[in-house]
Amino acid sequence: MEIGRLNHVAIVVPDLVKAARIYRQILLAKVSDVQTLPEHGVQVVFVDLGNTKIELLQPYGTNSPVAKFLESHPQGGMHHVCYEVQNIFLARDHLVQNGARILGNGDPKIGAHGKPVLFLHPKDFCGTLIELEQI
Amino acid sequence: MEIGRLNHVAIVVPDLVKAARIYRQILLAKVSDVQTLPEHGVQVVFVDLGNTKIELLQPYGTNSPVAKFLESHPQGGMHHVCYEVQNIFLARDHLVQNGARILGNGDPKIGAHGKPVLFLHPKDFCGTLIELEQI
Repeated sequence: MEIGRLNHVAIVVPDLVKAARIYRQILLAKVSDVQTLPEHGVQVVFVDLGNTKIELLQPYGTNSPVAKFLESHPQGGMHHVCYEVQNIFLARDHLVQNGARILGNGDPKIGAHGKPVLFLHPKDFCGTLIELEQI
Repeated sequence: MEIGRLNHVAIVVPDLVKAARIYRQILLAKVSDVQTLPEHGVQVVFVDLGNTKIELLQPYGTNSPVAKFLESHPQGGMHHVCYEVQNIFLARDHLVQNGARILGNGDPKIGAHGKPVLFLHPKDFCGTLIELEQI
């Protein structure tokens, strides 16, 4: 169940259009259009870096999972990293056996890319929120 | 001067040996030995993710550039992302022309990988500290 590639780094921002402009015009990166994912409570812009991607996220609707983060980081900030795994259930079992805490009820959910994901407790991983995504 | 690949994500941790063990034993990642870089004020462990890497950093010596971050994030946390550029001077000029602030005196320094680097002001980049490294 070893972790594989870095799927993305998620950065929460207060103004997604402005953030997309910064990445497109100042850093001259390949930046997607804004996509709205109502069921995940975010709007997202993908920055293609060739080997991996940055996901710029803005809260959308009520109960966005990133609204609280933005309150405590009003300028925005790095929110999580996402590592790929081959089998999310084997990953989950290995993690739980080793004392790592899974957020939520412990079962994989379907993530923003339509694939099963888990989020791991930051306190168990050096203060970093980690998403695991089955590829 | 567009940004290229994500060279690494830097995570500052309070206990590098423990962090290395978490990545090696819990996440089953490929983790290097601890390297000490006195001239950069850090000890570092590299996590090889295949497409990019995580750098786990711990302050070393006095005046470590990451000591203050650890004070405000005692459990550790994501410190910066590093994007690759082809020419650090062209990148610098483009950034300055577009109003982005470079940290320090504005000139590239030799970074922890022995290559020229710049750090960009987080306030200009969605609250994210960005390192640019010439490859």
